[in-house]
Amino acid sequence: MTLFSKIINGEIPSYKIAESDKFYAFLDVFPLREGHTLVVPKTEVDNLFDLGDEYLSELLVFAKPVAKAIEKAFRCNRCGISVIGLEVPHAHVHLIPINSSNDLNFTQPKPKASDDDLKKVQEKILSQLK
Amino acid sequence: MTLFSKIINGEIPSYKIAESDKFYAFLDVFPLREGHTLVVPKTEVDNLFDLGDEYLSELLVFAKPVAKAIEKAFRCNRCGISVIGLEVPHAHVHLIPINSSNDLNFTQPKPKASDDDLKKVQEKILSQLK
Repeated sequence: MTLFSKIINGEIPSYKIAESDKFYAFLDVFPLREGHTLVVPKTEVDNLFDLGDEYLSELLVFAKPVAKAIEKAFRCNRCGISVIGLEVPHAHVHLIPINSSNDLNFTQPKPKASDDDLKKVQEKILSQLK
Repeated sequence: MTLFSKIINGEIPSYKIAESDKFYAFLDVFPLREGHTLVVPKTEVDNLFDLGDEYLSELLVFAKPVAKAIEKAFRCNRCGISVIGLEVPHAHVHLIPINSSNDLNFTQPKPKASDDDLKKVQEKILSQLK
Protein backbone atom coordinates (compact mmCIF):
# COMPACT_ATOMS: atom_id res chain seq x y z
CA MET A 1 0.00 0.00 0.00
CA THR A 2 1.37 3.44 -0.90
CA LEU A 3 2.01 6.27 1.55
CA PHE A 4 -0.92 8.16 0.02
CA SER A 5 -3.30 5.20 0.37
CA LYS A 6 -2.37 5.06 4.08
CA ILE A 7 -3.18 8.77 4.34
CA ILE A 8 -6.49 8.34 2.48
CA ASN A 9 -7.62 5.46 4.72
CA GLY A 10 -6.54 7.32 7.89
CA GLU A 11 -3.64 5.06 8.93
CA ILE A 12 -1.43 8.14 8.65
CA PRO A 13 -3.00 11.43 9.83
CA SER A 14 -3.31 14.30 7.36
CA TYR A 15 -4.53 17.87 7.09
CA LYS A 16 -7.58 17.09 4.98
CA ILE A 17 -8.98 19.75 2.65
CA ALA A 18 -11.63 17.90 0.60
CA GLU A 19 -12.79 14.42 -0.34
CA SER A 20 -15.05 12.76 -2.92
CA ASP A 21 -15.70 9.12 -3.85
CA LYS A 22 -12.66 9.28 -6.18
CA PHE A 23 -10.26 11.90 -4.78
CA TYR A 24 -8.67 13.08 -1.52
CA ALA A 25 -7.08 16.53 -1.06
CA PHE A 26 -4.73 17.32 1.83
CA LEU A 27 -1.82 19.58 2.72
CA ASP A 28 1.71 18.65 1.64
CA VAL A 29 3.68 18.58 4.92
CA PHE A 30 6.78 19.56 2.89
CA PRO A 31 5.23 22.62 1.24
CA LEU A 32 6.98 24.46 -1.56
CA ARG A 33 4.81 27.46 -0.64
CA GLU A 34 2.24 28.09 2.10
CA GLY A 35 -1.02 26.55 0.91
CA HIS A 36 0.61 23.72 -1.07
CA THR A 37 -2.10 21.05 -1.41
CA LEU A 38 -2.06 17.57 -2.96
CA VAL A 39 -4.96 16.02 -4.87
CA VAL A 40 -4.69 12.23 -5.00
CA PRO A 41 -6.93 9.67 -6.72
CA LYS A 42 -8.15 6.99 -4.33
CA THR A 43 -7.16 4.31 -6.80
CA GLU A 44 -3.43 3.46 -6.80
CA VAL A 45 -1.77 4.24 -10.11
CA ASP A 46 1.78 5.50 -10.52
CA ASN A 47 1.35 7.57 -13.70
CA LEU A 48 -1.56 10.05 -13.71
CA PHE A 49 -2.23 9.26 -17.37
CA ASP A 50 -2.84 5.61 -16.50
CA LEU A 51 -6.06 6.67 -14.77
CA GLY A 52 -9.20 5.70 -16.66
CA ASP A 53 -11.09 8.41 -18.52
CA GLU A 54 -13.79 8.60 -15.84
CA TYR A 55 -11.19 9.42 -13.18
CA LEU A 56 -9.33 11.83 -15.46
CA SER A 57 -12.51 13.66 -16.34
CA GLU A 58 -13.39 14.28 -12.69
CA LEU A 59 -9.93 15.31 -11.48
CA LEU A 60 -9.85 19.00 -12.46
CA VAL A 61 -13.55 19.43 -11.61
CA PHE A 62 -12.77 18.13 -8.10
CA ALA A 63 -9.64 20.32 -7.88
CA LYS A 64 -11.37 23.53 -9.02
CA PRO A 65 -13.06 24.60 -5.74
CA VAL A 66 -9.91 23.65 -3.81
CA ALA A 67 -7.78 25.79 -6.16
CA LYS A 68 -10.26 28.68 -5.90
CA ALA A 69 -10.12 28.46 -2.08
CA ILE A 70 -6.30 28.48 -2.16
CA GLU A 71 -6.38 31.55 -4.44
CA LYS A 72 -8.62 33.37 -1.93
CA ALA A 73 -6.70 32.23 1.15
CA PHE A 74 -3.22 33.33 0.04
CA ARG A 75 -1.84 36.42 -1.66
CA CYS A 76 -1.08 35.10 -5.13
CA ASN A 77 -1.57 35.65 -8.84
CA ARG A 78 -3.29 32.26 -9.16
CA CYS A 79 -3.16 28.60 -8.17
CA GLY A 80 -0.58 26.74 -10.28
CA ILE A 81 -0.56 23.01 -11.04
CA SER A 82 2.33 20.58 -11.19
CA VAL A 83 2.35 16.83 -11.78
CA ILE A 84 5.78 15.25 -11.40
CA GLY A 85 5.42 12.01 -9.43
CA LEU A 86 9.01 10.77 -9.36
CA GLU A 87 9.08 10.23 -5.58
CA VAL A 88 5.82 8.55 -4.50
CA PRO A 89 4.47 5.89 -6.92
CA HIS A 90 0.87 7.07 -6.50
CA ALA A 91 -0.29 9.78 -8.91
CA HIS A 92 -0.74 13.20 -7.29
CA VAL A 93 -1.42 16.75 -8.39
CA HIS A 94 0.31 19.67 -6.66
CA LEU A 95 -1.84 22.81 -6.23
CA ILE A 96 0.35 25.76 -5.24
CA PRO A 97 -0.39 29.49 -4.95
CA ILE A 98 2.07 31.22 -7.30
CA ASN A 99 3.36 34.69 -8.09
CA SER A 100 6.30 33.62 -10.26
CA SER A 101 7.44 30.49 -12.08
CA ASN A 102 9.95 29.95 -9.27
CA ASP A 103 7.02 29.22 -6.95
CA LEU A 104 6.56 25.93 -8.89
CA ASN A 105 10.29 25.09 -8.94
CA PHE A 106 10.62 21.73 -7.18
CA THR A 107 14.41 21.83 -7.14
CA GLN A 108 14.17 24.20 -4.16
CA PRO A 109 14.43 22.94 -0.57
CA LYS A 110 11.06 21.98 0.95
CA PRO A 111 11.48 21.99 4.73
CA LYS A 112 8.82 20.17 6.79
CA ALA A 113 6.18 22.58 8.07
CA SER A 114 5.27 22.64 11.76
CA ASP A 115 1.92 21.19 12.89
CA ASP A 116 0.93 24.67 14.08
CA ASP A 117 1.58 26.20 10.66
CA LEU A 118 -0.20 23.37 8.82
CA LYS A 119 -3.23 23.69 11.10
CA LYS A 120 -3.42 27.44 10.33
CA VAL A 121 -3.08 26.85 6.58
CA GLN A 122 -5.79 24.17 6.70
CA GLU A 123 -8.15 26.56 8.53
CA LYS A 124 -7.47 29.36 6.03
CA ILE A 125 -8.26 27.14 3.04
CA LEU A 126 -11.29 25.47 4.65
CA SER A 127 -12.78 28.86 5.58
CA GLN A 128 -12.72 29.78 1.87
CA LEU A 129 -14.21 26.44 0.78
CA LYS A 130 -17.47 27.12 2.62
CA MET B 1 -7.31 38.08 -29.51
CA THR B 2 -4.58 36.19 -27.65
CA LEU B 3 -1.41 34.78 -29.20
CA PHE B 4 -2.80 31.27 -28.68
CA SER B 5 -6.12 32.10 -30.38
CA LYS B 6 -4.14 33.34 -33.40
CA ILE B 7 -2.24 30.02 -33.41
CA ILE B 8 -5.48 28.02 -33.09
CA ASN B 9 -7.17 29.84 -35.98
CA GLY B 10 -4.04 29.57 -38.14
CA GLU B 11 -3.08 33.27 -38.29
CA ILE B 12 0.23 32.25 -36.72
CA PRO B 13 1.70 28.93 -37.92
CA SER B 14 2.32 26.17 -35.38
CA TYR B 15 3.63 22.62 -35.09
CA LYS B 16 0.26 21.00 -34.48
CA ILE B 17 0.06 17.74 -32.53
CA ALA B 18 -3.69 17.20 -31.99
CA GLU B 19 -7.02 19.01 -32.10
CA SER B 20 -10.59 18.48 -30.91
CA ASP B 21 -13.66 20.72 -30.85
CA LYS B 22 -12.46 22.16 -27.51
CA PHE B 23 -8.64 21.87 -27.46
CA TYR B 24 -5.55 22.44 -29.60
CA ALA B 25 -2.15 20.85 -28.88
CA PHE B 26 1.06 22.14 -30.47
CA LEU B 27 4.80 22.37 -29.80
CA ASP B 28 6.17 25.11 -27.57
CA VAL B 29 8.74 26.90 -29.76
CA PHE B 30 10.63 27.79 -26.57
CA PRO B 31 10.86 24.23 -25.23
CA LEU B 32 12.10 23.50 -21.73
CA ARG B 33 12.88 19.98 -22.98
CA GLU B 34 12.61 18.31 -26.39
CA GLY B 35 8.99 17.25 -26.81
CA HIS B 36 7.54 20.16 -24.80
CA THR B 37 3.91 20.46 -25.94
CA LEU B 38 1.15 22.91 -25.04
CA VAL B 39 -2.52 22.01 -24.67
CA VAL B 40 -4.77 25.06 -25.00
CA PRO B 41 -8.57 25.36 -24.71
CA LYS B 42 -10.11 27.02 -27.75
CA THR B 43 -12.10 29.32 -25.51
CA GLU B 44 -10.14 32.30 -24.17
CA VAL B 45 -9.82 32.24 -20.40
CA ASP B 46 -6.81 33.44 -18.44
CA ASN B 47 -7.04 31.11 -15.43
CA LEU B 48 -7.47 27.40 -16.20
CA PHE B 49 -9.84 27.05 -13.26
CA ASP B 50 -12.20 29.60 -14.83
CA LEU B 51 -13.03 27.03 -17.52
CA GLY B 52 -16.50 25.51 -17.16
CA ASP B 53 -16.80 21.98 -15.82
CA GLU B 54 -17.45 20.54 -19.30
CA TYR B 55 -14.13 21.93 -20.56
CA LEU B 56 -12.27 20.93 -17.39
CA SER B 57 -13.62 17.39 -17.58
CA GLU B 58 -12.38 16.91 -21.15
CA LEU B 59 -8.93 18.47 -20.75
CA LEU B 60 -6.95 15.55 -19.28
CA VAL B 61 -8.84 13.03 -21.44
CA PHE B 62 -7.74 15.03 -24.51
CA ALA B 63 -4.17 15.34 -23.16
CA LYS B 64 -3.79 11.62 -22.33
CA PRO B 65 -2.97 10.23 -25.82
CA VAL B 66 -0.68 13.22 -26.46
CA ALA B 67 1.18 12.55 -23.18
CA LYS B 68 1.42 8.83 -23.97
CA ALA B 69 2.88 9.65 -27.41
CA ILE B 70 5.43 12.02 -25.82
CA GLU B 71 6.40 9.28 -23.35
CA LYS B 72 7.03 6.86 -26.22
CA ALA B 73 8.82 9.39 -28.44
CA PHE B 74 11.40 10.56 -25.89
CA ARG B 75 13.60 8.81 -23.34
CA CYS B 76 11.91 9.80 -20.08
CA ASN B 77 10.46 8.51 -16.85
CA ARG B 78 7.07 9.98 -17.73
CA CYS B 79 5.27 13.03 -19.10
CA GLY B 80 5.00 15.75 -16.46
CA ILE B 81 2.37 18.49 -16.31
CA SER B 82 2.73 22.14 -15.39
CA VAL B 83 0.17 24.93 -15.40
CA ILE B 84 1.65 28.36 -14.62
CA GLY B 85 0.16 30.89 -17.02
CA LEU B 86 1.82 34.11 -15.88
CA GLU B 87 3.02 35.12 -19.36
CA VAL B 88 0.20 34.53 -21.86
CA PRO B 89 -3.33 35.38 -20.59
CA HIS B 90 -4.87 32.28 -22.22
CA ALA B 91 -4.90 29.11 -20.09
CA HIS B 92 -2.42 26.45 -21.23
CA VAL B 93 -1.09 23.15 -19.97
CA HIS B 94 2.59 22.25 -20.44
CA LEU B 95 3.27 18.57 -21.21
CA ILE B 96 6.99 17.81 -20.81
CA PRO B 97 8.94 14.54 -20.80
CA ILE B 98 10.75 14.40 -17.46
CA ASN B 99 13.48 12.44 -15.72
CA SER B 100 13.94 14.78 -12.75
CA SER B 101 12.03 17.61 -11.10
CA ASN B 102 14.48 20.02 -12.75
CA ASP B 103 12.96 19.08 -16.12
CA LEU B 104 9.85 21.04 -15.01
CA ASN B 105 11.80 23.98 -13.63
CA PHE B 106 10.61 27.03 -15.59
CA THR B 107 13.25 29.34 -14.12
CA GLN B 108 15.73 27.81 -16.57
CA PRO B 109 16.55 29.48 -19.91
CA LYS B 110 14.27 28.31 -22.76
CA PRO B 111 16.05 29.14 -26.03
CA LYS B 112 13.94 29.17 -29.21
CA ALA B 113 14.17 25.86 -31.05
CA SER B 114 15.03 25.80 -34.76
CA ASP B 115 12.33 24.98 -37.31
CA ASP B 116 14.29 21.85 -38.28
CA ASP B 117 14.35 20.59 -34.70
CA LEU B 118 10.67 21.38 -34.14
CA LYS B 119 9.71 19.56 -37.35
CA LYS B 120 11.63 16.46 -36.18
CA VAL B 121 10.02 16.57 -32.73
CA GLN B 122 6.57 16.95 -34.30
CA GLU B 123 7.19 13.91 -36.54
CA LYS B 124 8.41 11.82 -33.59
CA ILE B 125 5.31 12.58 -31.53
CA LEU B 126 2.86 12.21 -34.43
CA SER B 127 4.35 8.82 -35.36
CA GLN B 128 3.50 7.61 -31.83
CA LEU B 129 -0.02 9.08 -31.92
CA LYS B 130 -1.07 6.80 -34.79
